[in-house]
Amino acid sequence: MREFVLYSNKGRTGPDFTLKDLPGSGGRMDLVARCVISALWLSRKMRKDSRIYISLNGPPNPTLALRFDGGELERVAPDERNVAIWIKKVLKRGDMESREWRGVHDGVSLSSMGFKDIIGEMRKKQIYLLHEGGKDVRDVELSDNPVFVLGDHMGLPENEKEFLERRETKKISLGPESYFSSQSITLVHNELDRR
Amino acid sequence: MREFVLYSNKGRTGPDFTLKDLPGSGGRMDLVARCVISALWLSRKMRKDSRIYISLNGPPNPTLALRFDGGELERVAPDERNVAIWIKKVLKRGDMESREWRGVHDGVSLSSMGFKDIIGEMRKKQIYLLHEGGKDVRDVELSDNPVFVLGDHMGLPENEKEFLERRETKKISLGPESYFSSQSITLVHNELDRR
Repeated sequence: MREFVLYSNKGRTGPDFTLKDLPGSGGRMDLVARCVISALWLSRKMRKDSRIYISLNGPPNPTLALRFDGGELERVAPDERNVAIWIKKVLKRGDMESREWRGVHDGVSLSSMGFKDIIGEMRKKQIYLLHEGGKDVRDVELSDNPVFVLGDHMGLPENEKEFLERRETKKISLGPESYFSSQSITLVHNELDRR
Repeated sequence: MREFVLYSNKGRTGPDFTLKDLPGSGGRMDLVARCVISALWLSRKMRKDSRIYISLNGPPNPTLALRFDGGELERVAPDERNVAIWIKKVLKRGDMESREWRGVHDGVSLSSMGFKDIIGEMRKKQIYLLHEGGKDVRDVELSDNPVFVLGDHMGLPENEKEFLERRETKKISLGPESYFSSQSITLVHNELDRR
Protein backbone atom coordinates (compact mmCIF):
# COMPACT_ATOMS: atom_id res chain seq x y z
CA MET A 1 0.00 0.00 0.00
CA ARG A 2 1.17 3.52 -0.83
CA GLU A 3 -0.31 6.27 1.30
CA PHE A 4 -0.25 10.05 0.93
CA VAL A 5 -1.25 12.66 3.51
CA LEU A 6 -1.96 16.18 2.25
CA TYR A 7 -2.13 19.03 4.76
CA SER A 8 -4.61 21.62 3.43
CA ASN A 9 -4.30 24.88 5.39
CA LYS A 10 -7.52 26.51 4.20
CA GLY A 11 -9.50 23.55 2.78
CA ARG A 12 -13.17 24.20 3.54
CA THR A 13 -14.62 21.98 6.28
CA GLY A 14 -18.20 22.29 5.13
CA PRO A 15 -20.16 21.81 1.90
CA ASP A 16 -20.81 25.54 1.51
CA PHE A 17 -18.25 26.23 -1.22
CA THR A 18 -19.08 26.83 -4.86
CA LEU A 19 -17.88 24.67 -7.72
CA LYS A 20 -17.41 27.92 -9.66
CA ASP A 21 -14.62 29.00 -7.32
CA LEU A 22 -12.77 26.02 -5.86
CA PRO A 23 -9.56 28.04 -5.29
CA GLY A 24 -11.26 30.85 -3.33
CA SER A 25 -14.46 29.61 -1.73
CA GLY A 26 -13.11 26.07 -1.38
CA GLY A 27 -9.81 27.13 0.19
CA ARG A 28 -7.81 25.63 -2.71
CA MET A 29 -10.14 22.67 -3.16
CA ASP A 30 -8.86 22.63 -6.77
CA LEU A 31 -5.44 21.69 -5.43
CA VAL A 32 -6.99 19.03 -3.19
CA ALA A 33 -8.87 17.55 -6.16
CA ARG A 34 -5.76 17.44 -8.34
CA CYS A 35 -3.89 15.62 -5.56
CA VAL A 36 -6.66 13.01 -5.32
CA ILE A 37 -6.46 12.50 -9.10
CA SER A 38 -2.65 12.17 -9.08
CA ALA A 39 -2.73 9.78 -6.13
CA LEU A 40 -5.36 7.34 -7.40
CA TRP A 41 -5.51 7.34 -11.20
CA LEU A 42 -3.41 5.98 -14.02
CA SER A 43 -4.39 5.99 -17.67
CA ARG A 44 -7.14 3.41 -18.09
CA LYS A 45 -7.02 2.11 -14.51
CA MET A 46 -7.08 3.02 -10.84
CA ARG A 47 -4.17 2.65 -8.47
CA LYS A 48 -5.86 0.08 -6.26
CA ASP A 49 -2.92 -0.08 -3.84
CA SER A 50 -3.04 3.65 -3.10
CA ARG A 51 -4.83 5.84 -0.61
CA ILE A 52 -4.79 9.56 0.10
CA TYR A 53 -5.75 11.39 3.29
CA ILE A 54 -6.68 15.08 3.18
CA SER A 55 -6.37 17.02 6.41
CA LEU A 56 -8.75 19.98 6.05
CA ASN A 57 -8.04 22.93 8.35
CA GLY A 58 -10.16 25.76 6.98
CA PRO A 59 -13.49 27.10 8.31
CA PRO A 60 -16.19 26.43 9.44
CA ASN A 61 -15.59 23.09 11.25
CA PRO A 62 -11.86 22.36 11.57
CA THR A 63 -10.50 19.81 11.79
CA LEU A 64 -11.87 17.28 9.31
CA ALA A 65 -10.16 14.52 7.39
CA LEU A 66 -11.10 12.84 4.13
CA ARG A 67 -9.78 9.50 2.96
CA PHE A 68 -9.92 8.30 -0.67
CA ASP A 69 -9.17 4.63 -1.35
CA GLY A 70 -8.10 3.74 -4.89
CA GLY A 71 -9.19 0.15 -4.38
CA GLU A 72 -12.77 1.02 -3.48
CA LEU A 73 -13.60 4.23 -5.29
CA GLU A 74 -16.66 4.05 -7.55
CA ARG A 75 -18.35 6.50 -9.92
CA VAL A 76 -15.86 9.32 -9.30
CA ALA A 77 -14.37 10.77 -12.50
CA PRO A 78 -10.81 12.14 -12.56
CA ASP A 79 -11.49 15.82 -13.17
CA GLU A 80 -11.36 18.63 -10.62
CA ARG A 81 -15.06 19.47 -10.69
CA ASN A 82 -16.21 15.88 -10.30
CA VAL A 83 -13.87 15.16 -7.40
CA ALA A 84 -15.01 18.41 -5.76
CA ILE A 85 -18.67 17.40 -6.20
CA TRP A 86 -17.97 14.23 -4.24
CA ILE A 87 -16.13 16.15 -1.54
CA LYS A 88 -19.17 18.44 -1.18
CA LYS A 89 -21.48 15.42 -0.92
CA VAL A 90 -19.34 13.79 1.73
CA LEU A 91 -19.11 17.03 3.75
CA LYS A 92 -22.90 17.35 3.53
CA ARG A 93 -23.83 13.79 4.45
CA GLY A 94 -21.03 12.76 6.76
CA ASP A 95 -20.92 12.81 10.55
CA MET A 96 -18.52 15.64 11.35
CA GLU A 97 -18.33 14.82 15.03
CA SER A 98 -17.03 11.28 14.77
CA ARG A 99 -13.35 10.54 15.11
CA GLU A 100 -13.92 7.06 13.68
CA TRP A 101 -13.56 6.78 9.93
CA ARG A 102 -17.05 6.54 8.41
CA GLY A 103 -17.54 5.54 4.81
CA VAL A 104 -19.85 8.07 3.19
CA HIS A 105 -19.49 6.93 -0.40
CA ASP A 106 -17.71 3.91 -1.91
CA GLY A 107 -14.05 4.62 -1.28
CA VAL A 108 -14.52 7.98 0.46
CA SER A 109 -14.51 8.26 4.26
CA LEU A 110 -14.75 11.12 6.72
CA SER A 111 -13.39 11.66 10.21
CA SER A 112 -13.00 14.61 12.57
CA MET A 113 -9.33 13.73 13.04
CA GLY A 114 -6.65 16.37 12.70
CA PHE A 115 -3.29 15.96 10.98
CA LYS A 116 -1.48 14.64 14.06
CA ASP A 117 -4.20 12.06 14.70
CA ILE A 118 -3.91 10.80 11.12
CA ILE A 119 -0.15 10.43 11.45
CA GLY A 120 -0.61 8.90 14.90
CA GLU A 121 -2.55 6.03 13.35
CA MET A 122 0.34 5.20 10.99
CA ARG A 123 2.05 3.07 13.62
CA LYS A 124 5.31 1.42 12.59
CA LYS A 125 5.07 2.79 9.07
CA GLN A 126 7.94 4.89 7.75
CA ILE A 127 6.88 8.48 7.10
CA TYR A 128 8.53 10.49 4.32
CA LEU A 129 8.09 14.24 4.23
CA LEU A 130 8.32 15.77 0.77
CA HIS A 131 10.67 18.69 1.35
CA GLU A 132 12.91 20.72 -0.95
CA GLY A 133 15.83 20.28 1.46
CA GLY A 134 15.47 16.49 1.66
CA LYS A 135 17.55 13.72 0.14
CA ASP A 136 16.91 12.99 -3.54
CA VAL A 137 14.17 10.35 -3.79
CA ARG A 138 16.18 8.55 -6.47
CA ASP A 139 18.90 7.87 -3.89
CA VAL A 140 16.61 6.83 -1.04
CA GLU A 141 15.71 3.27 -0.14
CA LEU A 142 11.94 3.33 0.31
CA SER A 143 10.25 1.01 2.80
CA ASP A 144 7.30 -1.25 2.11
CA ASN A 145 3.98 0.50 2.74
CA PRO A 146 5.47 3.99 2.72
CA VAL A 147 3.58 7.08 3.84
CA PHE A 148 4.31 10.37 2.05
CA VAL A 149 3.35 13.64 3.71
CA LEU A 150 3.07 16.89 1.83
CA GLY A 151 1.76 20.40 2.33
CA ASP A 152 -0.36 22.51 0.02
CA HIS A 153 0.81 25.79 -1.58
CA MET A 154 1.34 27.26 1.93
CA GLY A 155 3.32 24.29 3.21
CA LEU A 156 3.10 22.57 6.58
CA PRO A 157 2.77 24.78 9.69
CA GLU A 158 5.82 24.82 12.02
CA ASN A 159 3.99 22.90 14.73
CA GLU A 160 3.16 20.03 12.38
CA LYS A 161 6.73 20.00 11.06
CA GLU A 162 8.12 19.67 14.58
CA PHE A 163 5.65 16.88 15.30
CA LEU A 164 6.94 14.97 12.26
CA GLU A 165 10.56 15.48 13.30
CA ARG A 166 9.89 13.80 16.63
CA ARG A 167 8.39 10.89 14.67
CA GLU A 168 11.70 10.10 12.86
CA THR A 169 10.35 11.27 9.57
CA LYS A 170 12.73 11.14 6.61
CA LYS A 171 12.82 14.13 4.29
CA ILE A 172 12.95 13.48 0.57
CA SER A 173 13.16 15.87 -2.38
CA LEU A 174 12.07 15.36 -5.95
CA GLY A 175 14.52 17.44 -7.95
CA PRO A 176 15.95 20.94 -8.20
CA GLU A 177 12.59 22.67 -8.61
CA SER A 178 9.65 23.20 -6.29
CA TYR A 179 6.64 21.33 -7.65
CA PHE A 180 2.88 21.53 -7.15
CA SER A 181 1.56 19.07 -4.55
CA SER A 182 -0.19 17.06 -7.28
CA GLN A 183 2.94 17.01 -9.44
CA SER A 184 4.95 15.79 -6.43
CA ILE A 185 2.57 12.85 -5.95
CA THR A 186 3.00 11.90 -9.63
CA LEU A 187 6.81 11.97 -9.25
CA VAL A 188 6.74 9.79 -6.12
CA HIS A 189 4.44 7.25 -7.79
CA ASN A 190 6.68 7.06 -10.85
CA GLU A 191 9.75 6.42 -8.70
CA LEU A 192 7.94 3.58 -6.90
CA ASP A 193 6.58 2.17 -10.17
CA ARG A 194 10.15 1.78 -11.38
CA ARG A 195 11.34 -0.26 -8.35
CA MET B 1 12.87 26.13 -24.85
CA ARG B 2 10.84 23.03 -24.02
CA GLU B 3 7.82 22.42 -26.23
CA PHE B 4 4.91 20.02 -25.88
CA VAL B 5 2.31 19.13 -28.52
CA LEU B 6 -0.91 17.50 -27.31
CA TYR B 7 -3.19 15.80 -29.86
CA SER B 8 -6.77 16.14 -28.62
CA ASN B 9 -9.09 13.83 -30.59
CA LYS B 10 -12.39 15.34 -29.48
CA GLY B 11 -11.36 18.75 -28.10
CA ARG B 12 -14.13 21.18 -28.96
CA THR B 13 -13.24 23.69 -31.70
CA GLY B 14 -15.77 26.29 -30.65
CA PRO B 15 -16.70 28.16 -27.45
CA ASP B 16 -20.03 26.32 -27.11
CA PHE B 17 -19.02 23.95 -24.34
CA THR B 18 -20.08 24.27 -20.72
CA LEU B 19 -17.71 24.71 -17.80
CA LYS B 20 -20.00 22.33 -15.91
CA ASP B 21 -19.03 19.45 -18.19
CA LEU B 22 -15.53 19.86 -19.56
CA PRO B 23 -15.08 16.07 -20.08
CA GLY B 24 -18.28 15.62 -22.12
CA SER B 25 -19.30 18.87 -23.77
CA GLY B 26 -15.69 20.04 -24.05
CA GLY B 27 -14.41 16.79 -25.55
CA ARG B 28 -12.05 16.21 -22.58
CA MET B 29 -11.20 19.86 -22.17
CA ASP B 30 -10.46 18.93 -18.52
CA LEU B 31 -7.55 16.83 -19.78
CA VAL B 32 -6.40 19.69 -22.02
CA ALA B 33 -6.49 22.12 -19.08
CA ARG B 34 -4.50 19.78 -16.82
CA CYS B 35 -1.87 19.44 -19.54
CA VAL B 36 -1.56 23.22 -19.82
CA ILE B 37 -1.12 23.44 -16.04
CA SER B 38 1.52 20.67 -15.97
CA ALA B 39 3.40 22.19 -18.88
CA LEU B 40 3.63 25.77 -17.65
CA TRP B 41 3.44 25.94 -13.86
CA LEU B 42 5.75 25.20 -10.98
CA SER B 43 5.04 25.99 -7.36
CA ARG B 44 5.32 29.76 -6.97
CA LYS B 45 6.50 30.42 -10.53
CA MET B 46 5.85 29.88 -14.21
CA ARG B 47 8.01 27.80 -16.51
CA LYS B 48 8.99 30.71 -18.71
CA ASP B 49 11.02 28.50 -21.05
CA SER B 50 8.05 26.24 -21.84
CA ARG B 51 5.28 26.24 -24.41
CA ILE B 52 2.42 23.87 -25.15
CA TYR B 53 0.48 23.44 -28.39
CA ILE B 54 -2.98 21.85 -28.33
CA SER B 55 -4.23 20.35 -31.58
CA LEU B 56 -8.05 20.36 -31.31
CA ASN B 57 -9.83 17.92 -33.62
CA GLY B 58 -13.39 17.83 -32.33
CA PRO B 59 -16.49 19.58 -33.74
CA PRO B 60 -17.65 22.08 -34.94
CA ASN B 61 -14.62 23.70 -36.69
CA PRO B 62 -11.70 21.24 -36.92
CA THR B 63 -8.86 21.77 -37.09
CA LEU B 64 -7.80 24.42 -34.61
CA ALA B 65 -4.64 24.85 -32.62
CA LEU B 66 -3.99 26.67 -29.37
CA ARG B 67 -0.59 27.76 -28.14
CA PHE B 68 0.16 28.66 -24.51
CA ASP B 69 3.49 30.38 -23.76
CA GLY B 70 4.77 30.15 -20.19
CA GLY B 71 6.90 33.24 -20.66
CA GLU B 72 4.02 35.47 -21.68
CA LEU B 73 0.94 34.13 -19.93
CA GLU B 74 -0.88 36.66 -17.75
CA ARG B 75 -3.90 36.46 -15.43
CA VAL B 76 -4.53 32.75 -16.03
CA ALA B 77 -4.80 30.72 -12.80
CA PRO B 78 -3.65 27.08 -12.66
CA ASP B 79 -6.95 25.31 -12.10
CA GLU B 80 -9.03 23.43 -14.69
CA ARG B 81 -11.97 25.77 -14.72
CA ASN B 82 -9.89 28.92 -15.09
CA VAL B 83 -7.78 27.52 -17.92
CA ALA B 84 -10.99 26.36 -19.63
CA ILE B 85 -12.52 29.85 -19.26
CA TRP B 86 -9.57 31.26 -21.18
CA ILE B 87 -9.85 28.60 -23.86
CA LYS B 88 -13.51 29.54 -24.31
CA LYS B 89 -12.61 33.22 -24.59
CA VAL B 90 -9.93 32.53 -27.17
CA LEU B 91 -12.26 30.32 -29.22
CA LYS B 92 -14.88 33.08 -29.09
CA ARG B 93 -12.68 36.02 -29.99
CA GLY B 94 -10.08 34.46 -32.23
CA ASP B 95 -9.96 34.30 -36.02
CA MET B 96 -10.63 30.64 -36.78
CA GLU B 97 -9.79 30.97 -40.46
CA SER B 98 -6.23 32.17 -40.14
CA ARG B 99 -3.34 29.74 -40.39
CA GLU B 100 -1.02 32.38 -38.93
CA TRP B 101 -0.67 32.31 -35.16
CA ARG B 102 -2.69 35.19 -33.71
CA GLY B 103 -2.32 36.26 -30.10
CA VAL B 104 -5.78 36.49 -28.59
CA HIS B 105 -4.73 36.97 -24.98
CA ASP B 106 -1.30 37.49 -23.38
CA GLY B 107 0.46 34.20 -23.96
CA VAL B 108 -2.43 32.43 -25.72
CA SER B 109 -2.54 32.20 -29.52
CA LEU B 110 -4.88 30.56 -32.03
CA SER B 111 -4.36 29.11 -35.50
CA SER B 112 -6.36 26.94 -37.87
CA MET B 113 -3.36 24.62 -38.25
CA GLY B 114 -3.74 20.89 -37.85
CA PHE B 115 -1.36 18.55 -36.07
CA LYS B 116 0.87 17.94 -39.08
CA ASP B 117 1.18 21.67 -39.76
CA ILE B 118 2.26 22.27 -36.16
CA ILE B 119 4.93 19.57 -36.40
CA GLY B 120 5.89 20.84 -39.85
CA GLU B 121 6.88 24.16 -38.31
CA MET B 122 9.28 22.48 -35.86
CA ARG B 123 12.08 22.44 -38.43
CA LYS B 124 15.39 20.94 -37.31
CA LYS B 125 14.09 20.32 -33.81
CA GLN B 126 14.22 16.78 -32.45
CA ILE B 127 10.74 15.36 -31.88
CA TYR B 128 10.15 12.87 -29.06
CA LEU B 129 6.94 10.85 -29.04
CA LEU B 130 5.79 9.73 -25.58
CA HIS B 131 5.02 6.08 -26.14
CA GLU B 132 4.80 3.09 -23.81
CA GLY B 133 7.04 1.08 -26.14
CA GLY B 134 9.77 3.71 -26.33
CA LYS B 135 13.19 3.86 -24.72
CA ASP B 136 13.26 4.85 -21.05
CA VAL B 137 13.60 8.65 -20.83
CA ARG B 138 16.21 8.25 -18.08
CA ASP B 139 18.51 6.51 -20.60
CA VAL B 140 17.93 8.92 -23.49
CA GLU B 141 20.15 11.84 -24.34
CA LEU B 142 17.77 14.73 -24.90
CA SER B 143 18.57 17.46 -27.40
CA ASP B 144 18.47 21.18 -26.77
CA ASN B 145 15.05 22.68 -27.49
CA PRO B 146 13.27 19.33 -27.48
CA VAL B 147 9.68 18.87 -28.67
CA PHE B 148 7.54 16.25 -26.89
CA VAL B 149 4.44 14.93 -28.63
CA LEU B 150 1.68 13.12 -26.79
CA GLY B 151 -1.86 11.93 -27.34
CA ASP B 152 -4.89 12.30 -25.11
CA HIS B 153 -6.75 9.35 -23.51
CA MET B 154 -7.49 7.99 -27.03
CA GLY B 155 -3.90 8.26 -28.23
CA LEU B 156 -2.62 9.47 -31.58
CA PRO B 157 -4.46 8.32 -34.72
CA GLU B 158 -2.52 5.91 -36.98
CA ASN B 159 -2.12 8.47 -39.71
CA GLU B 160 -0.47 10.96 -37.35
CA LYS B 161 1.77 8.22 -35.94
CA GLU B 162 2.98 7.31 -39.43
CA PHE B 163 3.61 10.97 -40.17
CA LEU B 164 5.84 11.20 -37.09
CA GLU B 165 7.74 8.07 -38.04
CA ARG B 166 8.70 9.60 -41.38
CA ARG B 167 9.98 12.60 -39.41
CA GLU B 168 12.63 10.53 -37.52
CA THR B 169 10.79 10.90 -34.28
CA LYS B 170 12.33 9.16 -31.25
CA LYS B 171 10.00 7.24 -28.98
CA ILE B 172 10.50 7.59 -25.24
CA SER B 173 8.70 5.96 -22.33
CA LEU B 174 8.32 7.17 -18.76
CA GLY B 175 8.18 3.99 -16.74
CA PRO B 176 6.36 0.67 -16.51
CA GLU B 177 2.89 2.21 -16.19
CA SER B 178 0.70 4.14 -18.59
CA TYR B 179 0.23 7.67 -17.28
CA PHE B 180 -2.26 10.47 -17.86
CA SER B 181 -1.11 13.00 -20.46
CA SER B 182 -0.72 15.65 -17.76
CA GLN B 183 1.24 13.27 -15.53
CA SER B 184 3.52 12.45 -18.48
CA ILE B 185 4.33 16.13 -18.96
CA THR B 186 5.26 16.43 -15.28
CA LEU B 187 7.59 13.42 -15.57
CA VAL B 188 9.32 14.81 -18.68
CA HIS B 189 9.82 18.21 -17.03
CA ASN B 190 11.30 16.60 -13.92
CA GLU B 191 13.78 14.60 -15.99
CA LEU B 192 14.89 17.76 -17.81
CA ASP B 193 15.07 19.76 -14.56
CA ARG B 194 17.58 17.23 -13.26
CA ARG B 195 20.00 17.58 -16.22
